[in-house]
Amino acid sequence: MSQWKNMDQLEAFAALKQTAKVDLPKVMAGDEGAERVKKYQVPMAENMSYNFAAKAVDDDILAALQKLADEAELVDKFNDLFNGAVINTGEKRMVLHHLTRGQLGEDVIADGVNKREFYLNEQKKIADFANDVHSGKIANEAGEKFTTVVQIGIGGSDLGPRAMYLALENWAKVQGKLKMKAHFISNVDPDDAASVLSSVDVAHSLFIIVSKSGTTLETLTNQSFVMDALEKAGLDTSKHLIAVTSETSPLAHSDAFLKAFFMDDYIGGRYSSTSGVGGAVLSLAFGPEVFAEFLDGAAHEDVLSKEKDLFKNPALMDALIGVYERNVLGYGATAILPYSQALSRFAAHLQQLDMESNGKSVNRYGEKVNYVTGPVIFGEPGTNGQHSFYQLLHQGTDIIPLQFVGYKNNQMHHDVVIQGSTSQQKLSANVAAQIVAFAAGKENENPNKSFDGGRPSSIIIGDSVSPASLGALLAHFENKVMFQGFVWNLNSFDQEGVQLGKILAKKVLAHETDGALKAYSELLNI
Amino acid sequence: MSQWKNMDQLEAFAALKQTAKVDLPKVMAGDEGAERVKKYQVPMAENMSYNFAAKAVDDDILAALQKLADEAELVDKFNDLFNGAVINTGEKRMVLHHLTRGQLGEDVIADGVNKREFYLNEQKKIADFANDVHSGKIANEAGEKFTTVVQIGIGGSDLGPRAMYLALENWAKVQGKLKMKAHFISNVDPDDAASVLSSVDVAHSLFIIVSKSGTTLETLTNQSFVMDALEKAGLDTSKHLIAVTSETSPLAHSDAFLKAFFMDDYIGGRYSSTSGVGGAVLSLAFGPEVFAEFLDGAAHEDVLSKEKDLFKNPALMDALIGVYERNVLGYGATAILPYSQALSRFAAHLQQLDMESNGKSVNRYGEKVNYVTGPVIFGEPGTNGQHSFYQLLHQGTDIIPLQFVGYKNNQMHHDVVIQGSTSQQKLSANVAAQIVAFAAGKENENPNKSFDGGRPSSIIIGDSVSPASLGALLAHFENKVMFQGFVWNLNSFDQEGVQLGKILAKKVLAHETDGALKAYSELLNI
Repeated sequence: MSQWKNMDQLEAFAALKQTAKVDLPKVMAGDEGAERVKKYQVPMAENMSYNFAAKAVDDDILAALQKLADEAELVDKFNDLFNGAVINTGEKRMVLHHLTRGQLGEDVIADGVNKREFYLNEQKKIADFANDVHSGKIANEAGEKFTTVVQIGIGGSDLGPRAMYLALENWAKVQGKLKMKAHFISNVDPDDAASVLSSVDVAHSLFIIVSKSGTTLETLTNQSFVMDALEKAGLDTSKHLIAVTSETSPLAHSDAFLKAFFMDDYIGGRYSSTSGVGGAVLSLAFGPEVFAEFLDGAAHEDVLSKEKDLFKNPALMDALIGVYERNVLGYGATAILPYSQALSRFAAHLQQLDMESNGKSVNRYGEKVNYVTGPVIFGEPGTNGQHSFYQLLHQGTDIIPLQFVGYKNNQMHHDVVIQGSTSQQKLSANVAAQIVAFAAGKENENPNKSFDGGRPSSIIIGDSVSPASLGALLAHFENKVMFQGFVWNLNSFDQEGVQLGKILAKKVLAHETDGALKAYSELLNI
Repeated sequence: MSQWKNMDQLEAFAALKQTAKVDLPKVMAGDEGAERVKKYQVPMAENMSYNFAAKAVDDDILAALQKLADEAELVDKFNDLFNGAVINTGEKRMVLHHLTRGQLGEDVIADGVNKREFYLNEQKKIADFANDVHSGKIANEAGEKFTTVVQIGIGGSDLGPRAMYLALENWAKVQGKLKMKAHFISNVDPDDAASVLSSVDVAHSLFIIVSKSGTTLETLTNQSFVMDALEKAGLDTSKHLIAVTSETSPLAHSDAFLKAFFMDDYIGGRYSSTSGVGGAVLSLAFGPEVFAEFLDGAAHEDVLSKEKDLFKNPALMDALIGVYERNVLGYGATAILPYSQALSRFAAHLQQLDMESNGKSVNRYGEKVNYVTGPVIFGEPGTNGQHSFYQLLHQGTDIIPLQFVGYKNNQMHHDVVIQGSTSQQKLSANVAAQIVAFAAGKENENPNKSFDGGRPSSIIIGDSVSPASLGALLAHFENKVMFQGFVWNLNSFDQEGVQLGKILAKKVLAHETDGALKAYSELLNI
């Protein structure tokens, strides 16, 4: 088993801090810049690549990062993880989301079953169910086909599946694979459920209740909301509800549901898009073959994360450059900037994935760490962001590292030529231009129009947003966040920081408050 | 006229840095905490209030902030602004968005006209047009009523109007005031336009082309996209397109449009929701009376920004606490957390408003400043965010100041009782609980379950999201950002930082590149 140490106990980290800084505007100029673009890239699965030419690194820093990866035994730790070690130390659980899409190592046996087989079996059950819904074999009380699927979940049961659905909805439309339109209800704000219910035809809708524990307050509340609506429409709720939950949850074996699909405690919510949590809604929306392609893309990307060489492991390279920016250069936030409207909510998913995994101050043994950990993550699609917050990214007083994603082709194959170029060409030209503008800058005698440059970015380049490339992209970021958690010696798989708010909210609802909490409750008329 | 000085030249700022820090967990405990909640609030318009009890300030710091506001002449500068001074020094323009909703001072005459009357007249033209569309007097070629409005714009022509539309869409549904459903096209990614066009009935749609200059590449491209679709459907494009632009733009007097409405150079894009940029789409969607209520709410809030006393001027108080957090406490980001699903895109609008206004490194005279300016702004609605990035906010290594918004009532008046409370009560209980959890924390012998507290937040509390309260909320943030720009001695009304990327993108499209830019262009197949 590998050794877990705090980052500041590693010799390689001390050495990394001693490396000379890179003058990014200088190295990105002229032929040297062009060379960097060709040289500083790592192949990804599904014909994608991770290009970090515009990051403030050079061969010396990369060598130091490789040593850090080696001394911290990052790939060994990944091996431990997928072979079933108890990586989630706080909750004493294995971390097995990679098994939902592939077998990277040894068989993992838990609760008396082979976990890969368990996840495959649930996926098969979901595929059969989805096929029966699409064929009309499973239909509503009137024998009519279901046309719509509504996912009810919050956090990991919402953000990932929603981002993936939105990423593929238009692709599916043009491919003739949009089998059912999907909607999502997440917020305990009653206006969320009321709004969705006012826009769907409940008689032809299937509702998926997604909660691992079966006790998530928002989700149970919204389940009741939906059941009310079904009852008012004179419908049998048990013919319209399915569950995705753990086998030990109160939802698992209940007559309230037409069907239940299972995940388990070894799949964290924010890592559950490739489990039944994403599987049910995506298989119903697009068909099980599309979900299978998505899983294959993720599995192909996962295999690269086993490589010890940074230049063969894009997630590891991305992770370590991020650690360098956070802990050596001292940057506090990272912007996620996909140049694809399909990825409109991808940054919102990464916000949870990253900030909930690594937004922590204690190591995996519960000891305070003496260095900063996870950054703030935010982002919007380009070119929209260019007309919004890029001003600060270019000329603000803080430097924010950037993570671009760009594609050679769009999804809908519908384009126009204006001023001699297609919209797709304009989109791609903009992302190329931004990278260089941020890195190289441009002096102007008017300081208000001057750009210092030195603002680092990477770009993932792919052919188009497809089920497989989306799966690979998702796995890339999951594994990046995992490797960063390893470097920082964190447990990236619990979320104790969400508990205190829950406890206090219950006190407010029970009117068991005093002091400031009581005063706020009164102001809010609770 | 008031004196413009860099913040670090002000005695009051030096004094502010000398004030003793507040121990937030301590002062938020017990009766003292309850007292703070009652005492530390500033009334806002439309029955709202700004409560900053959970900010790390006390009477001494507030006194220092008042002195800073006074020495920096912040309210005098606001007076200069609304009386027509050339506040936008870079572009040598007045800044007149307040005149779109009220007259705060003297008549402002420019281009030979009274600007308040000009904006009112455009508003009246829009109202008449909207009424004619709703009555069917203005109809499509077949004489049928238009049912749908599609706004085509980017940045300020998109984010603000879109956020406002989404904030009121469900309110309008239950009030019977949803006259036309609105959609938005912004991104140059062709999938954005293709997706919207695949989901609307173009024969019954009005398209609003919004570009002040009439030269925004994304918007012109998407206009062509839409015209293509109309032509393919055998429709007369000039019967379906209207424009919101400046009188000097190529769109202003063109046969291509059924009608054009005007704004001018004195309204910045990110401050244009109360001009025709927001007015056309919101009046068509909800009726001109609803848009007028929205303007009234903003006007009422603006009046409060004339007060010199921090305790009577919520935007000024909010601005100065933000400056204290940024420049004395050293925090780099601010999260916007509205507990209302209706405000799902409000944070995205504030991201532009704040980061594009104050993400700058030079003062209004083009000289580098020696202090940090605008922070990173991000956010999502609660309770969704609680299940996403709140982990980092509670237990991460950096402190992120928080800006909550909460309401006593929801919009759709459709709720359920589960476990003894309504969803609305649960929603409100959660925001109250979060404020106290962040500020006070809670020790636990297991450090992984321990909360240090000391994480500051404010909350704006209102009755519900209505047109008037939304207008007031928007004006609050606009004026907050303006005051912060004044303290930092910035020009908050230009955006030179977006220019370099545009220039380089044009080079890519013209194939006039070398070095790194050429290499990236090749990778992206441009």
